[in-house]
Amino acid sequence: MTDAAAPPRPEARNPRGFADRRGPDLIAERRLVARVSEVYERWGFEPLETGAFEYADALGKFLPDADRPNEGVFALQDDPDAEGHGQWMALRYDLTAPLARFAAQNWETLPKPFRRYAFGPVWRNEKPGPGRFREFVQCDADTVGSDRPEADAEIIAMACEGLRAAGLGADQAVVRVSSRKLFDGLFEAGGVTDPVQKLTALRAIDKFDRLGWEGVSALLGEGRLDESGDYTKGANLPIGVAATLEAFLASAGDAGLTRAGTLDAVARASGLGAIGEAALEELSAIDRALTAMKVGEGTVRFDPTIVRGLEYYTGAVFEAELLMDTTDDKGRAVRFGSIGGGGRYDDLVARFTGERLPATGFSFGVSRLVAALRAAGRGGEAAMRGPVVVIVFGEADMQHYLDAVSELRNAGVAAELYLGRAGMKAQMKYADRRGAPAAIMLGGDEIAAGKVTIKDLDAGRALAAGVTDNDAWKAERPGQQTVDRGAMVATVGAIVEAARQGS
Amino acid sequence: MTDAAAPPRPEARNPRGFADRRGPDLIAERRLVARVSEVYERWGFEPLETGAFEYADALGKFLPDADRPNEGVFALQDDPDAEGHGQWMALRYDLTAPLARFAAQNWETLPKPFRRYAFGPVWRNEKPGPGRFREFVQCDADTVGSDRPEADAEIIAMACEGLRAAGLGADQAVVRVSSRKLFDGLFEAGGVTDPVQKLTALRAIDKFDRLGWEGVSALLGEGRLDESGDYTKGANLPIGVAATLEAFLASAGDAGLTRAGTLDAVARASGLGAIGEAALEELSAIDRALTAMKVGEGTVRFDPTIVRGLEYYTGAVFEAELLMDTTDDKGRAVRFGSIGGGGRYDDLVARFTGERLPATGFSFGVSRLVAALRAAGRGGEAAMRGPVVVIVFGEADMQHYLDAVSELRNAGVAAELYLGRAGMKAQMKYADRRGAPAAIMLGGDEIAAGKVTIKDLDAGRALAAGVTDNDAWKAERPGQQTVDRGAMVATVGAIVEAARQGS
Repeated sequence: MTDAAAPPRPEARNPRGFADRRGPDLIAERRLVARVSEVYERWGFEPLETGAFEYADALGKFLPDADRPNEGVFALQDDPDAEGHGQWMALRYDLTAPLARFAAQNWETLPKPFRRYAFGPVWRNEKPGPGRFREFVQCDADTVGSDRPEADAEIIAMACEGLRAAGLGADQAVVRVSSRKLFDGLFEAGGVTDPVQKLTALRAIDKFDRLGWEGVSALLGEGRLDESGDYTKGANLPIGVAATLEAFLASAGDAGLTRAGTLDAVARASGLGAIGEAALEELSAIDRALTAMKVGEGTVRFDPTIVRGLEYYTGAVFEAELLMDTTDDKGRAVRFGSIGGGGRYDDLVARFTGERLPATGFSFGVSRLVAALRAAGRGGEAAMRGPVVVIVFGEADMQHYLDAVSELRNAGVAAELYLGRAGMKAQMKYADRRGAPAAIMLGGDEIAAGKVTIKDLDAGRALAAGVTDNDAWKAERPGQQTVDRGAMVATVGAIVEAARQGS
Repeated sequence: MTDAAAPPRPEARNPRGFADRRGPDLIAERRLVARVSEVYERWGFEPLETGAFEYADALGKFLPDADRPNEGVFALQDDPDAEGHGQWMALRYDLTAPLARFAAQNWETLPKPFRRYAFGPVWRNEKPGPGRFREFVQCDADTVGSDRPEADAEIIAMACEGLRAAGLGADQAVVRVSSRKLFDGLFEAGGVTDPVQKLTALRAIDKFDRLGWEGVSALLGEGRLDESGDYTKGANLPIGVAATLEAFLASAGDAGLTRAGTLDAVARASGLGAIGEAALEELSAIDRALTAMKVGEGTVRFDPTIVRGLEYYTGAVFEAELLMDTTDDKGRAVRFGSIGGGGRYDDLVARFTGERLPATGFSFGVSRLVAALRAAGRGGEAAMRGPVVVIVFGEADMQHYLDAVSELRNAGVAAELYLGRAGMKAQMKYADRRGAPAAIMLGGDEIAAGKVTIKDLDAGRALAAGVTDNDAWKAERPGQQTVDRGAMVATVGAIVEAARQGS
């Protein structure tokens, strides 16, 4: 096809792992972010936007090495600056690291504690796959500078109200809460000091949902051979520590327990150590604050199996999960999985300042929450309607078409003039593809008679499909009608309103 | 300060040319984008978001070379994909190039013409300076697939309504319109074919604002020696061509001309050639459509000195300018400069498909428009108010504080509990720094008596500063009052409303 003499034509395609978003998906995401932002601002969190790039040393765990500067992040070396050295910078991979940098940089002048929320894209240089992107939008809220358990409780309660504002019913999501310190105390009291051993144990507990106690038990001990024949080396924990962990997991399984009841069950497990006991005290204070804020026992539960993958958490951890209306063959609610999470991280800002600054926050992925809403049957309202389309019959009557468009827009009705050069049939097809609720026809006859013909496209489709044979309905909402020109805005307004309610 | 044994601490700082945005500036930007988006959707433009990266070949003019892959853009080489080759990708430097790629990629399934708007950050790898960033937010609207002059007129009229919705008065901005084809015709008719000569001439005309006819004339001829002693080589245009250009510029200077009057003046200049005559026809059709849409002569003017820097424009070009209320010593309105622009670009999509696809659009920088609004005295309303702050006296009464916060939030009042551990004085300072309209005090006495003390912080400041000595005002809006607990929400609501109107 390509002429050898012509310059080569690039192929029009997205970089792998990057997607274009439009239509109902984009509308749904924007609506969700707007509703959650409204809640967060009402709770006293101010908006903050940081730049896409951070210096690589500020991102910390992804310091680029000379051979693979792109490991995990999109990094590049800046041009030499005034001091003559080009520094490595990387696109942010979350919104927490930039907040830590911002808080350290501006701590003197910020109101303390500092509450902020943020949303925006983050970038991960990972292998893309189906539904797995290298760019996605996160929405975070954090409080920096408060060590109070009430700060954790506030974040949790606000996250619940945010999920509700996004459209989830009270029985469709649960936030599970635990504390990293429970494990810290357990390990310390049990003499487990090897970081690798601790990490292996936490990763095993994180799989409780999927493997049950039997599988986790093997991973806490010597190791586990899975069904495919792969062997995973275990944590080799002392028997006493593993027994306490089993008691944790048992209490997590009892859905009838209140938050206080779960804490009681955990407290009865021996070997928590001083740090673990302090963690129970903090969780108890979180419970009191949640109860004071009238957050129900079914909305926020304590669950000592909650671990959270990120290493930087230092205290309370939370995970929001969607509870589907569907049940598995044992009659238990099936989990869609995590739709957000967070926790307390008291050391992130200290990386810059050397001084510990307590912080706690909650984060969710916007696209994933939209998918969760859809799974929960709450995504239907996001149907997108196009503008009313004014049909073009001929150049000479352009003034009449433009008048009609202006009148509709001035009445708050989205409207447009067809701007292609195709005939009547193609214009109707265009209006259909646009999702237009109505088309406006001002032919020469209509203009001469002071009339306008209005085609109700939803009704037209319903009539054509024989969806209704109710004569009264047809009379009330005909597919097409010719009315006085002066009645156009009112007639179209009624059709648009009916389309809005029907969609 | 740094302990030699401790790990090195990174400095908390933004990458150069990247800024954090918060507070009133961010609120103002978001409000502006929301208002403009509402207009664009009412005009039938659908939202589209593309990814941050494009493959470098899709960006076209910034193909990275091996030595300086970062020339102008932030580019990096992707990890090898399944085919084993890592491709160069770059962060988008505008929103037009991604649209051209998207349109070429999806043309089959898009409604035609395709109208979309978009806003989001763009990145330019340039030397940063004061007020000059390497990341900034643009907002664009484009129509792809219509060669009608009405499509240009629609974009221009919509841009005007967008500026109005953003807050600019009808007399505070003007959109100047011309056509690249006027120059194309002029050059063709005058036998000017050298691309460098053409570009030099266009750049000279672009300086008419600053240099006047004398300076431009020198640059169209042999060259110009400026006041600093620098010599700029001229375009060496034939005398006849330069004379026609002078007639153009003369017509531009006459502010009393209507759009049609300007076209008449340009038409009287000889040597436009066939292409120039066709351009006049198109501009005439744009004028008819603008007039049909009731766009005033003062809102959109024709101005043949408008050139626009970007090379890809092929027809109509537009530039929106702020008209300040101030005048210079000759009594003329002083220009703030361009606050947005656009035009027709019929060749961008053809880069991918080989087929010409007409397109036209308008773009503005969000921060720059916010700055323009401020310069025009229309930025004041964006003052940010913090939440009402509930003071913490002691742990035991936490329930009472949390109840107060919940009640206020449920009434739609932004409110928060103080979550630090400082005393009363520091808490009041915190509330002040937050921009809180009121502070709520529930001390032991108030709680026992079923009362609450409410401090109106604006009124308190005014009283303390002796701003008012009006006794009636003091009685009506005291700095501090103790009311029945049941009257808290209503009392605070009135204070917040007064603060909102006063700010």
